[in-house]
Amino acid sequence: MSDPTQQTLDALNGTAVHLRHVRKARDATDRVGPRHFLHAGPPLELAAVPGPMRGAIIAGLLLEREAGSAAEAEAIIDRGEVSISPCHDAGAVGAMAGIITPNTPVVVAGTAGGVTTFSPLNEGIGGAMRYGSYDDVTLARLRWLGDVLAPALDEAVRRSDPLDLPALVAEGLRRGDDCHNRLVATTAALLVALTPGLLRTRLDREDLAKVVAFIAGNGHFALPFAISAAKAVTLAASGVPGSPVVTAMASNGREFGIRVSGLGDRWFTVAAPVGDPVLVEGATLDDVTPTMGDSMIAETAGFGAFAMTAAPAIMSFVGGDAARAHEITRRMRTVCAGTSERFLIPGEDFRGTPLGIDVHKVRATGVEPVINNGLAHREPGRGRAGAGITPIPVEPFAAASRALEEAGHAGRAAAVEGAHA
Amino acid sequence: MSDPTQQTLDALNGTAVHLRHVRKARDATDRVGPRHFLHAGPPLELAAVPGPMRGAIIAGLLLEREAGSAAEAEAIIDRGEVSISPCHDAGAVGAMAGIITPNTPVVVAGTAGGVTTFSPLNEGIGGAMRYGSYDDVTLARLRWLGDVLAPALDEAVRRSDPLDLPALVAEGLRRGDDCHNRLVATTAALLVALTPGLLRTRLDREDLAKVVAFIAGNGHFALPFAISAAKAVTLAASGVPGSPVVTAMASNGREFGIRVSGLGDRWFTVAAPVGDPVLVEGATLDDVTPTMGDSMIAETAGFGAFAMTAAPAIMSFVGGDAARAHEITRRMRTVCAGTSERFLIPGEDFRGTPLGIDVHKVRATGVEPVINNGLAHREPGRGRAGAGITPIPVEPFAAASRALEEAGHAGRAAAVEGAHA
Repeated sequence: MSDPTQQTLDALNGTAVHLRHVRKARDATDRVGPRHFLHAGPPLELAAVPGPMRGAIIAGLLLEREAGSAAEAEAIIDRGEVSISPCHDAGAVGAMAGIITPNTPVVVAGTAGGVTTFSPLNEGIGGAMRYGSYDDVTLARLRWLGDVLAPALDEAVRRSDPLDLPALVAEGLRRGDDCHNRLVATTAALLVALTPGLLRTRLDREDLAKVVAFIAGNGHFALPFAISAAKAVTLAASGVPGSPVVTAMASNGREFGIRVSGLGDRWFTVAAPVGDPVLVEGATLDDVTPTMGDSMIAETAGFGAFAMTAAPAIMSFVGGDAARAHEITRRMRTVCAGTSERFLIPGEDFRGTPLGIDVHKVRATGVEPVINNGLAHREPGRGRAGAGITPIPVEPFAAASRALEEAGHAGRAAAVEGAHA
Repeated sequence: MSDPTQQTLDALNGTAVHLRHVRKARDATDRVGPRHFLHAGPPLELAAVPGPMRGAIIAGLLLEREAGSAAEAEAIIDRGEVSISPCHDAGAVGAMAGIITPNTPVVVAGTAGGVTTFSPLNEGIGGAMRYGSYDDVTLARLRWLGDVLAPALDEAVRRSDPLDLPALVAEGLRRGDDCHNRLVATTAALLVALTPGLLRTRLDREDLAKVVAFIAGNGHFALPFAISAAKAVTLAASGVPGSPVVTAMASNGREFGIRVSGLGDRWFTVAAPVGDPVLVEGATLDDVTPTMGDSMIAETAGFGAFAMTAAPAIMSFVGGDAARAHEITRRMRTVCAGTSERFLIPGEDFRGTPLGIDVHKVRATGVEPVINNGLAHREPGRGRAGAGITPIPVEPFAAASRALEEAGHAGRAAAVEGAHA
C-alpha cells in the first residue's frame, strides 16, 4: 500500500470530473427541503449566521414561496422554523453565503467513481443571493436562471461531448485566470464549449440570445463549474487513513474550518479572518463580513491563490503586483505535499501548481496558507465590500496535525525540530 | 509641431479601429479582379513566387472560376495571364501567401479617420489557401466561408455594438495570447462578443451551429481581426516626414521588406530569413519556405513577439521558455521608439509592450527585431512546416536609417558612436 500522502495526491491529480447537469438543487440532492437549506462553511447555529447569510436565507424562503414577504421570512427564521446544514455535508460547495434551497439552480459535476458534487450557478455581479440580496430583481433572476438558463444548459450538456472540468480549469490557467477570483477567460472558454450544444436545444432564439448574453456578461460564470470540480477531486481524495492533506477549507463568516483526508469529516476551526483586503470605494473594514464561502475549495485543489503566477492580471484587483504573485505561489509550495500534474503555469515553464496542503508542513513552517477571495458587505444585498489574498491562521492546520499525531500518524514535517504552534 | 517620432507613436497608440465588415474582397476594394490578385510581402514577379504562393494563386483562379482545373490554372500562370500586387498597396494584410482574390472572404476594419483595411478570414489548420492548398476541400471551405460564414458575421457585426479591435488584442494579451501566433483566448473572446449578434441574424439554426463550431474549433480565427487592426494603426502612423518608425514588415517568401513612416511606400528589403524554427514532425529545414506573410504587422504595431511576456504558453510552440520570452520583450524595448499605452502586459505589472521600431535604434544597437511566425512548407498545400521566433537582419533597418539621414533626418540613436551597419 502506498504512502497516504501520495495516495491523496494521486486522487487530487488523477480524478477525472465531468459536467453532468445544470438543474435545480432538488433534482441533484435529497439533502435540501423547502425549510432545510445548505450553507457555506462549517456548521453554525441559525441564530448565529452573519448578515449576508441571513439575507440569503430570506431569499431562499421567498424563492421556495415559504414566505410571501421578507418580513414573513424573517419571522420564520426568528422562530427557528427553518434549518440549515453545511453544503460540504451534502457534497456541495457554495460561494459566499452558499445558501442552497430546492429551487436553487446548480451545476452538477461527477466522477467516474460515482462522486457527485454541485454548486449554485453564479448570479453575476450586483445584488445577488450569495451576498444576501432578496429583492425582486434578485428573485426574478434566480427564477429565470432556474427555469430558463439551467434547463437550456442542461440540454446543451446532453447534446455536447462530456466537458472535462479540470481541463477547463487548466485551460483557464493558460489564459491568465486563477479560476477563483478571475474567471473571465475560463467563462469565455466554457461558453464557446457549450454554445454549439445550446444551438441544438429547443430554446427559442430570443431566450438563447439572453442566455448567451447573460453568460458572456458575467466574468464569474465559470466559478461553480470550477469549484464543483474541485469538490469532486477533494472528495475523491478524502478518507485516506493517516493522510495529512487538506480536503476542504470553508468559512461560514464566523468560523473558518478545514477538513483533512485522514481525519474524516471533523472540522478544525478558527475565527474567520478578514485579512487586508482591497476595499470597494466607500467601504471600510468595519463593513466587511469576515471570510465566507466554500470557494476556497479552489486552493484546496491546487488553483486559485496557489496558481497566482498564472494570473498576474488579478493582482491589481486583490492587491499587489506580479512579484507578489510569484512570492505567493512560491510560499504555497513550502506547505504543499506535491505539485499538480494538470494545473500547469505557463509563466513557470509549465511547472504544476502547489497541490495538497500538508497540515504537518503548515505546523512545522508556520507558513499561513492563503486564499484569493471576495469579501461580502456585512449588510445583506450590498454585494462585495472587498477582495484580497487572505492568509489563514496556522491554528486549525496545527490542531489537525496534532490530532493525526495523537492517532499515531506523525508527519515527517511535524518531526522537524522547533515546529510552530 | 511635435517630434516626428512622437507623432508616429501617438498615431500607433491613439488610433481607434473598429470591425466594419466581414465580406468578400470584391466588396471591400477595387484593387482585385478575376485575374488580378493581392499577395503578401513586397512586390515580386509572378514567375518568382514561392511554392505555397503559386499554389494559392492556383486556388484563387479556381475560386474565381477562371480555371476549371489546377492544370488550367497553372497554364494561366505560366502564360502570365494573371497579375499580382502587394496586399499592403491595397491597405490589406494577408497571412502566409496572402493571396486575395475578389471572392476571398475578408475582415474589414476601419478608423474614424477613414482608413480602411482588410485581411482574409483564417481558414483553420490543415490544407488552406494561405499555405498554397487548392484541393476540393480547401475550395469548398473557402466558398462556405464566403457564402455562409462571412454574411452571417457581417450581419452579426451590424447587429452588435461596434467591436473595438485594439481592445480585443489588449484583452487577448491579458489572456495569455501574443495575438500573432497564439490567439485561442482572443478567438474565444471574439466569438463571445459576436454570438449575441449572430443569434439575431436570419441564419438558420444548423448553419449557425456550423459557424459557431468553425470559429470555436479554429484557434487562429482572430488573427485577421488583429492584423487588420494593426494595419489600420500603422497606416494612420504612416507618412510622418522624418519619422524613423517602421510602419510595415512583410515578406513574400523571397524578400523580407520594411516600410518606414518618413519614407513613404518605399520598401527596404533583405533575403527572407528562415530563422531557427521548431519544425513539425518529419520536416527538415529544407522543407521550409523562408518567412512569408504580412502578419508581422502585429509586431510592427506592438504585439506578437514584442508581447511575448504576455504569452508564456506559446514559448514551447516556438522554442524556448519563459526566461526567453522576457529576454525577447526586453530586447525589443531597446529598438523601439516607445511603449504601448493600450497593449499592456499583466506579468510586467501592466507595463506597455515595446512600440514602434526605430530604424535608427536598430542600426545603432545592431539588435535584430524579431517576429513570432509560422513557416509554410515549400510544397503547396502541405501546410505549416514550422514556427519560431525569427530574427530579421539589421540591413533593411540600417538602409532606411541611412536614407533618412541622407534626406536630412538623422536620428538621435544613429548619432551614437560606433553605430552598426
